[in-house]
Amino acid sequence: KMAQHALLSADEDWFVPSTAASKRVVNPIRRVVDHIKIKPNPAKALIPLSIGDPTNFGNLPTASTLTDALAAALQSGRYNGYPPSAGYAESRAAVAKFHSLPGYELTANDVIIASGCSGALEICISALVEPGKTLLVPNPGFPLYQCIAVTRGAEVKHYQLLPDKNWEIDLASLEALIDDTTAAIVVNNPSNPCGSVYSVEHLRDILALAERYRITIIADEIYGDMAFEGAKYVPMASLTESVPIISVSGIAKRFVVPGWRVGWLVVYDKKGRLNKEVREGLMSLTQIILGSCSLIQAALPAALLQTPPAFLDNLVLTLQKNAFACERGINKIEGLRANKPQGAMYLMVAIDISQFSDFKDDVEFSSKLLAEESVFVLPGQCFGIVNFVRLVFCAPIEKLEEACDRLAAFCDRHRRPTKKSKAAN
Amino acid sequence: KMAQHALLSADEDWFVPSTAASKRVVNPIRRVVDHIKIKPNPAKALIPLSIGDPTNFGNLPTASTLTDALAAALQSGRYNGYPPSAGYAESRAAVAKFHSLPGYELTANDVIIASGCSGALEICISALVEPGKTLLVPNPGFPLYQCIAVTRGAEVKHYQLLPDKNWEIDLASLEALIDDTTAAIVVNNPSNPCGSVYSVEHLRDILALAERYRITIIADEIYGDMAFEGAKYVPMASLTESVPIISVSGIAKRFVVPGWRVGWLVVYDKKGRLNKEVREGLMSLTQIILGSCSLIQAALPAALLQTPPAFLDNLVLTLQKNAFACERGINKIEGLRANKPQGAMYLMVAIDISQFSDFKDDVEFSSKLLAEESVFVLPGQCFGIVNFVRLVFCAPIEKLEEACDRLAAFCDRHRRPTKKSKAAN
Ligand SMILES: Cc1ncc(COP(=O)(O)O)c(C=O)c1O
Ligand SMILES: Cc1ncc(COP(=O)(O)O)c(C=O)c1O
Repeated sequence: KMAQHALLSADEDWFVPSTAASKRVVNPIRRVVDHIKIKPNPAKALIPLSIGDPTNFGNLPTASTLTDALAAALQSGRYNGYPPSAGYAESRAAVAKFHSLPGYELTANDVIIASGCSGALEICISALVEPGKTLLVPNPGFPLYQCIAVTRGAEVKHYQLLPDKNWEIDLASLEALIDDTTAAIVVNNPSNPCGSVYSVEHLRDILALAERYRITIIADEIYGDMAFEGAKYVPMASLTESVPIISVSGIAKRFVVPGWRVGWLVVYDKKGRLNKEVREGLMSLTQIILGSCSLIQAALPAALLQTPPAFLDNLVLTLQKNAFACERGINKIEGLRANKPQGAMYLMVAIDISQFSDFKDDVEFSSKLLAEESVFVLPGQCFGIVNFVRLVFCAPIEKLEEACDRLAAFCDRHRRPTKKSKAAN
Repeated sequence: KMAQHALLSADEDWFVPSTAASKRVVNPIRRVVDHIKIKPNPAKALIPLSIGDPTNFGNLPTASTLTDALAAALQSGRYNGYPPSAGYAESRAAVAKFHSLPGYELTANDVIIASGCSGALEICISALVEPGKTLLVPNPGFPLYQCIAVTRGAEVKHYQLLPDKNWEIDLASLEALIDDTTAAIVVNNPSNPCGSVYSVEHLRDILALAERYRITIIADEIYGDMAFEGAKYVPMASLTESVPIISVSGIAKRFVVPGWRVGWLVVYDKKGRLNKEVREGLMSLTQIILGSCSLIQAALPAALLQTPPAFLDNLVLTLQKNAFACERGINKIEGLRANKPQGAMYLMVAIDISQFSDFKDDVEFSSKLLAEESVFVLPGQCFGIVNFVRLVFCAPIEKLEEACDRLAAFCDRHRRPTKKSKAAN
C-alpha cells in the first residue's frame, strides 16, 4: 500500500506538499504590496499612510482605564490560568452590557470573546459557510472576509459599493447575487476602505433584502461610534426584529491597541433563528484555539464600562480633523477626488487616470508616488477596485498636509497637457 | 432561483443551519465531562485534579523575568500596534535561539509565534492535512490534534501507546496505519495524559519509521524540559538529519501562564523538504487571525533568554515531588496502578475494574469518586482509553496526599470481597 513511497529512492523526491486550504489564504494587500518593489525616495522622509494601524505614529494614545486595569490584572496574579474558551464570564457580560440596545438587553451568553475581531470573523464565518455555500462580501472591501471563506472551501461573491452614492451598497447588484447557496451577507459599517457611514434608511433597505431572502447578516462594526460630523453610526441590530445579526468588533481601533488581539462577536437574534445550531457551532469553534489573552480580557470590563466618553470623543475629533484636512487637500488636486469622510480611519481617493500620462492604473500610481514622494498609500486593487488609492488618516495632521502637498506636486508633474494639446498626441 | 425561500411563509421556517466543520469540532473532554452530571460531596472540600491548568491552586508562580518584561512593555506604549502576522522579529529570534540545537542554529525565519501552542497546532495541522489525507495521533492522547484535523475535513487514525512499556508507541500499530494518505504523525513527548518521557532509543525508532515512509513529524514538545529524575527530555529534532520536524511549544506550562495564549512552532528541516510549499503555507495561515498578544510577545525574549535556570528547576522539582507522592499513594491502593512518573503534569492511573463491584468503567469510577469524595479526576475515555483515570499533580502536595487518602477509602469501600468470596456471587 505504500507503493508510491517505495518507488521513490532519490532523496530529492521526498517532497512535502501543503494543503489547498493554505494555498487559498490569499491576502490581496500582501499580493499587491509585494509587487510594489519600489523603494521610497531617500531624499524625502517616508510618510506611510498604508496600514490601518492607528498606533503607527504614536500620536493616538490608548485609554488609561484599559492600561491601569491591565497593569492591575498582571499584578494580581489572578488571571494567568485558562479562561473559558468563549472568554471570562465577566468580560462577556461587559461586552453584553456595552452592546445592549434600547429594548434589547444582551447577556454574557450572546457574546464570544475572540483573538481580535479577525478571530471573531473566523469563528462566525466558519460557523456559517462551507463548501457549496456562498458568502456575499462588499467590493471594495476588507479582504479578510474572502480570505476566511475561501480557506474554508466556500465561495465568495462580491456585491458592489457605489462611489458616487457615498459607497452605499448597490442593492440591485446585491440582490442579483442571492441564491439558495447564500449563507450570509457581510456588511461593514463604518467601512474599511471607504470611510463611509450608512444612513438609517440605507441600513433598513439592506435589512429588508436580508429579511425577504432570509439571510443572516454578519455586521462588521469594528469602527462603530467612529463617525464624524454629518454622519451618525447606528448598529444594524437596532433596526430589525427579524433578521439575525452577528456583529463583530473589538478593542483594536476604539482603544488604539490592535496588537493586543482582543475582539468579540455578539449574537442579536430576537426570533431565535440561530438557536438550533449556529450558537452551538460558534461555541464549538471557540474550543480550537481557546481565545485571547486572559490579562487583556480581564481588563475589558473597566475599559468598556469605565472609560470616560471624552476618550472616544477626542479620538474621533482628531480623526475627523485629519480626515477633513485630507479631503480638502485631495479635492484641490485636479484628477483626484474624495467623498466627504464620514468615519473610520480611511479615505478612498478616486484617480481620473485619463488625466495622467505616466500611470496605467492605481498600482502604478502608488508605486511612483512612493518612489518619487515617499508617500505610501495602498492601491484600490488591494480592496478589489481599480483607480482608487486608500489613504489612512491616523498620522499627525502636519504629516497628512505634507503628504497632500507632495501628492499635488506629484500629480502636477504627471498630468497630461490640457485636453487641447492632448488631441495633438 | 430562490424557489425554496419563496415557498417558505411561516416565520418558523427561517432556520439557519451551521456548518459540518463546526459540528465536527468535538472536544472529548467536554463530551465526557458534560455527562458527569454528578455534584461533589458537599461535606468534603473539592479537590479538582482534572484540568491541566497549573495556575489552579496559586502554588506555582510564574517567572519575574516574564512579568517584569510584560509590565515594561505595557509601560513603554511601544507594543500596542499590530506585530507581523508571524510575530515580532525579535520574539521569533528569541524562540529560535532558545530552541537551537548543537549543530543546528535556527533563525527567526524558522519560527512562527501563534495564539498558544493550540494556535501553533492549528497552523501546522492546517498546512499539512486536508480531505483525503490522514493524521496519525497517539491513543491515549491530547484530543486537540483530532479536533483540528477533523474540522479541516481530514481523517485521523490512532496509533496505540503501551501502558506496560511506559506508554511507548506500539511501533507495529503505528506502521500498520501508514499509507499513501498519511500526511503527518503527531508525537507528544513528554506526554499529556501519560506523563511519560521517551528515551533516545525510542525516539530513534520512531524517526526511523518516519524516515522509511517519508512522513513529516509534528512534535508536540510543550512539556519539553519538564522531565523528572530517571528520565531525560531530548528534542526529536536533535536526533535526525533527514526527517522534517515541526515542533510546537509555548509559555503555557513552562512559565505557568496558559491564559496568556502565546505559543509557537519551529521548523527543523535540514534537508529543506518543507521549503517548496509547507513553509509558505504556514506563513499564509498566520494571516487569518494575526497571531497573539503583542505585549506578551514583546516579553518573550526576556522570559526565554534571561530567566535563571533555577526557575524551571524549582518548578520541575515541585512537580516531581508531587508526582512521586501521588505514585506512592496510588500504588498502595489495591486495584489501582501507576507507572513511575517521568515528566509533564500528569499521572495515568490504571483501574483493575474487575476488583470493584460498583463501577462498570472509568467514567463511573470518576463520577462516583466525585460524588462521594469530592476528588475530580478525568476518565481515560476523554483521551481515548478505558479504565484509566488521569490525575493532574499540580496541586499542593497536602491536597494530593489527601486526594490519595480519599481514593484509598473510596476503593476500600467499593472493592469486591476477596477472590474466594467472589466465587460465591
Ligand atoms: C473592517 C475590519 N474588520 C476587522 C478588522 C480586524 O480587526 P482586529 O485587529 O481586531 O482583528 C479590521 C482591521 O483592520 C478591519 O478594518
Ligand atoms: C500536549 C499539549 N499540547 C498543547 C497544549 C495546548 O497548549 P496552549 O495552552 O499553549 O494552547 C496542551 C495544553 O494542555 C497540551 O497538553
